Amino acid sequence: MITIALHDYPIYVGSCLDRIREWAAADRYSQVFVFVDSNTRQYCLPALEPFLDAGRYTVVEIAAGEAHKNINTCQQIWNTLMYFQMDRSALVLNLGGGVLGDMGGFCASTFKRGVDFIQIPTTLLAQVDASIGGKLGIDYGQVKNSIGLFRNPRAVLADPVFFQTLPPRELRSGFAEVIKHSLIASREQWEHIVSITDLATVDWPTLVAPSLEIKRDIVAKDPFEKGLRKALNFGHTIGHALESQALETTEPLLHGEAIAAGMICEAFLSQQKLGLPEAELDQISQFLVRMYQPGVVAEEQSDHLIALMQNDKKNRGSAINFSLLPSIGSVEVDQTCTREQILESLRYLHACRS
Amino acid sequence: MITIALHDYPIYVGSCLDRIREWAAADRYSQVFVFVDSNTRQYCLPALEPFLDAGRYTVVEIAAGEAHKNINTCQQIWNTLMYFQMDRSALVLNLGGGVLGDMGGFCASTFKRGVDFIQIPTTLLAQVDASIGGKLGIDYGQVKNSIGLFRNPRAVLADPVFFQTLPPRELRSGFAEVIKHSLIASREQWEHIVSITDLATVDWPTLVAPSLEIKRDIVAKDPFEKGLRKALNFGHTIGHALESQALETTEPLLHGEAIAAGMICEAFLSQQKLGLPEAELDQISQFLVRMYQPGVVAEEQSDHLIALMQNDKKNRGSAINFSLLPSIGSVEVDQTCTREQILESLRYLHACRS
Repeated sequence: MITIALHDYPIYVGSCLDRIREWAAADRYSQVFVFVDSNTRQYCLPALEPFLDAGRYTVVEIAAGEAHKNINTCQQIWNTLMYFQMDRSALVLNLGGGVLGDMGGFCASTFKRGVDFIQIPTTLLAQVDASIGGKLGIDYGQVKNSIGLFRNPRAVLADPVFFQTLPPRELRSGFAEVIKHSLIASREQWEHIVSITDLATVDWPTLVAPSLEIKRDIVAKDPFEKGLRKALNFGHTIGHALESQALETTEPLLHGEAIAAGMICEAFLSQQKLGLPEAELDQISQFLVRMYQPGVVAEEQSDHLIALMQNDKKNRGSAINFSLLPSIGSVEVDQTCTREQILESLRYLHACRS
Repeated sequence: MITIALHDYPIYVGSCLDRIREWAAADRYSQVFVFVDSNTRQYCLPALEPFLDAGRYTVVEIAAGEAHKNINTCQQIWNTLMYFQMDRSALVLNLGGGVLGDMGGFCASTFKRGVDFIQIPTTLLAQVDASIGGKLGIDYGQVKNSIGLFRNPRAVLADPVFFQTLPPRELRSGFAEVIKHSLIASREQWEHIVSITDLATVDWPTLVAPSLEIKRDIVAKDPFEKGLRKALNFGHTIGHALESQALETTEPLLHGEAIAAGMICEAFLSQQKLGLPEAELDQISQFLVRMYQPGVVAEEQSDHLIALMQNDKKNRGSAINFSLLPSIGSVEVDQTCTREQILESLRYLHACRS
């Protein structure tokens, strides 16, 4: 087990579920609530329960999936907590992927103005993306994560035991964030990653821990996303818009799939705006195309996509903000691109696929 | 004008509306939103507008009154902010009483994970109660302030100019918090207060500033209400329950009216549990009865009242928590009372009235 010590909480990476015992049995907590969805109740809760005191915890099941990450589900959660008379000395364990962690953390942080919570991310994506940064929230008005707040958990347990129960497509989605971290901050990790051909044989903690260290170093310098932290948005301006758009269809994209496509577009923009070397652009887009086989963006959807980008949280006024790569392993924030450049990057994505 | 400098923001007390000019015109803000209700739009906004740049601000009107301090109104506010494409570099000015400040602050703090806001409390209650402590939120599931968070504003402007437009009943309600601050921390201010007979002739800034200093000193030692800050709950355990109960009727109580009745009950409990001298109990209850003429609590409502107390945020488990006075000017937290003692205090309230 590797411990990554953050300023105000620890992240345990590796086989670490036994760590929950000391928290869940602590005298200072009056009650323990375990938030699960139908999947994690079935596949993940059995691995956690041996470390909880029988009779001292309450399981709260939350509807699974991004489509339920909304204010209505929050109200159901708050109602349940009211029903169980949860008090401010309670502890919440969020056992699930990003949706459950974001929404469960948001509900815990706003119930009676906030109770302690621990994140137990069960997907690779949640382990590398949601363990650091304290971002909590829900989708609102068709815009991802548009209602929420920043608040840190008491601890994060990132145990790969859960990956055994994860569909391969989910694992691959999470891998996109690991790729992103290497592209913005570590050429060394990128060289390692680009050699991977089969995700089933990866030793995850050795990839997850350095990925978290990259994120930790960036977030520590900018806890409330006022500046430098935007570095983490590489691939996300276009990726988020693709994801929001897919939400409106019958074929939603997983977050990492959308970000992979976004990284191809934004690597192209990096080459146009910051002179990312052609060979590096090729290597990035070839690897991402091979790994993710991104879908087509129809020309007629472009306007709607750009409108979604304009409503992104990170923008100031009407300009669309990007974080782009001058070269692999480094990043520059606050890059704005014209509408025509963005359209061109979508055409590049299209061309890459063939 | 008196400036009370807190750790991370200033409170201006007195004639200070011109202070808004520097904030609202700051380059770092992309947009300015003024949240008002129908009352403050009519009576207070005209006093503020001369200090705002014409054409650079958007007025958002929110339904007035505690009955609207709920998640549905939040959704209307968020929808409006989405419509105006508010970004994270926006500034929100909350121009109103406690309801507007709590709910407007909550919506601003959760929109795109939080934008800056300034509180411009227009009632005495909001000036002394909501200016310090960062408590934001809404009522939920019949329980006051049960959904919310802690977050500080960038500044508070506590200008008595607005009191001219306040109904006398509102002014008297706010006065209850001023009384509470004196009872828990300053016998000197209590001696001054107990001599007041006519609220129309009070020089408010000279009462508001020391009241805020008392609250500042308590909150500074306990920003997240884990311990000492409970001192501020004197009168509030029973007062909140009375207020919640009245919410369900056609005759809602103003916050300070409920707290005044709560303080009479809890002064009685203070005498029972901590030996508050009989003469001080008499002085407190006589002054509060004269000032507030509290209503009757029917014997058959007591069970429901106690159930409401049990669901109070400050409780741990099922015990009901009080902050009580060993003598005027001092307070002890974490006092628990039995059901019978609470019933007895309600009978005392009843007896005081006759």
